[in-house]
Amino acid sequence: MLAGDARAIARAISLVESETPEAASLIGQIFKRTGRAYLIGVTGAPGTGKSTLVDALTAEIRRAGSTVGIIAVDPTSPFAADPGVYIRSMATRGHLGGLSRTTSDAALILDAAGKDFVVIETVGVGQDEVDIVRTADVSIVVLVPGTGDDVQAIKAGIMEIADIFVVNKADREGADRTAQAVAANLSLHPFAADEWKPPIVRTEANRGVGVDELWRQIGRFREHSAGQRAVRQRERHRVRLRELLSRRLVERIEAGLPEGEIDRIAERVAARDLDPYSAVAGMISSGLKA
Amino acid sequence: MLAGDARAIARAISLVESETPEAASLIGQIFKRTGRAYLIGVTGAPGTGKSTLVDALTAEIRRAGSTVGIIAVDPTSPFAADPGVYIRSMATRGHLGGLSRTTSDAALILDAAGKDFVVIETVGVGQDEVDIVRTADVSIVVLVPGTGDDVQAIKAGIMEIADIFVVNKADREGADRTAQAVAANLSLHPFAADEWKPPIVRTEANRGVGVDELWRQIGRFREHSAGQRAVRQRERHRVRLRELLSRRLVERIEAGLPEGEIDRIAERVAARDLDPYSAVAGMISSGLKA
Repeated sequence: MLAGDARAIARAISLVESETPEAASLIGQIFKRTGRAYLIGVTGAPGTGKSTLVDALTAEIRRAGSTVGIIAVDPTSPFAADPGVYIRSMATRGHLGGLSRTTSDAALILDAAGKDFVVIETVGVGQDEVDIVRTADVSIVVLVPGTGDDVQAIKAGIMEIADIFVVNKADREGADRTAQAVAANLSLHPFAADEWKPPIVRTEANRGVGVDELWRQIGRFREHSAGQRAVRQRERHRVRLRELLSRRLVERIEAGLPEGEIDRIAERVAARDLDPYSAVAGMISSGLKA
Repeated sequence: MLAGDARAIARAISLVESETPEAASLIGQIFKRTGRAYLIGVTGAPGTGKSTLVDALTAEIRRAGSTVGIIAVDPTSPFAADPGVYIRSMATRGHLGGLSRTTSDAALILDAAGKDFVVIETVGVGQDEVDIVRTADVSIVVLVPGTGDDVQAIKAGIMEIADIFVVNKADREGADRTAQAVAANLSLHPFAADEWKPPIVRTEANRGVGVDELWRQIGRFREHSAGQRAVRQRERHRVRLRELLSRRLVERIEAGLPEGEIDRIAERVAARDLDPYSAVAGMISSGLKA
């Protein structure tokens, strides 16, 4: 796996997804070999063409001579024959659980396996997904013309995390308006002279248009933020630690409670026989005693 | 608040959002008064016109003589003068944390305040948001024609949770194709004769077209699922309990560790001096000892 063998990588990622003690042990073993890959987080709502954009960006990175690992929601695979690209799908597991945890571990595997860049694609909003992209080395938010009615929602959730905005499908009607709305939003924030101001890149990913400019902006951001990379990494690990902590603690309480106790408590709460806050206080005191 | 006073409701929701001990105490006090409201969860990607649909549905519910509480991402407010409708925005807090927890508590407040229906609107995917909608009494998934390239993603994440599908903006090109894709997806699932098969309702929410049919399908589902409502409620409370449990446990560990310890540990992890799994094991053993 450390030599970049695709089958070994696949097995290692399956192992970390299994969340067994062996998974923890594998991460423990390879962890010192990680931290070299540059993490590119890409997010946007369904329909923005993220997958196509990630493919076009990957082609650009390959042209520059670097290797790529991709963790994608719904990967198309134009790179099947290229040993410099490894693509992992997250689609099969759906969105119901552990997304952020297993994605982080998969990224560590690809990092240890020597990929120069790891691209992580997530759909839309949701805290886990925002955290994944927010704590990547560079965060790219993909928008598309003509989704005006929820622009407020996008603003509230993911506008703040973007290091680079992409207006994809830039040949569509309304692309100017979308770019202007983003620029107007940015103008509300007073950027200091030496502060990074997120550029707005227009692309037509399906034809490869504008992707060279996106790649150039990633390079610019990487250079600009080199001094702050450690801060971003620390934040990434802080988020990860809290999440692992929470999972391990819940496991411990559940192990300390009699079989099926949580279901019985949920039933009592549903029957209004017990309120949720009191229920949890009770679970903690009996679960920790055990 | 129990009498439905809008200002008192607003104060109560702000209190539960504050996550103080007083918030827990308020929920404890009102909890026995909840469980009467019918929860309608509405989800869909940005640009599907969910807000407009929720408004049109609210008008329909009002016409039927019932009261409504709305918890929305980005509420428009055509009901400002109607005392039978209370609208709460979640937009200001963004999507960065506690969405599911505070949404559930806000729904309990609206329930205790006597609203007949509580409509909860969430954007897109993400585990918290899926959980909110999945555990409502009825789950509505809103799609829109012409977002084909991420249909796979939608399938993986939220198709399974729908009790009712809405194809909104049904006057747009591609509406037939979208409805057919959903129908094709449903046909893969063998429904038993007495099992609920999610209907596909076409709406043009901005003109109110098809919303009466949506309201009729909600009524049909409510009748059909009356016997299973307790199961859904238990699941809702189970999700909620685990989440509260996890938060309380993490708070407890953090309180047991020296000030700033988590940041120091995150820094050591970022420096590859310690792997995340070992770090968490250490935090738990020292945090629980304290």
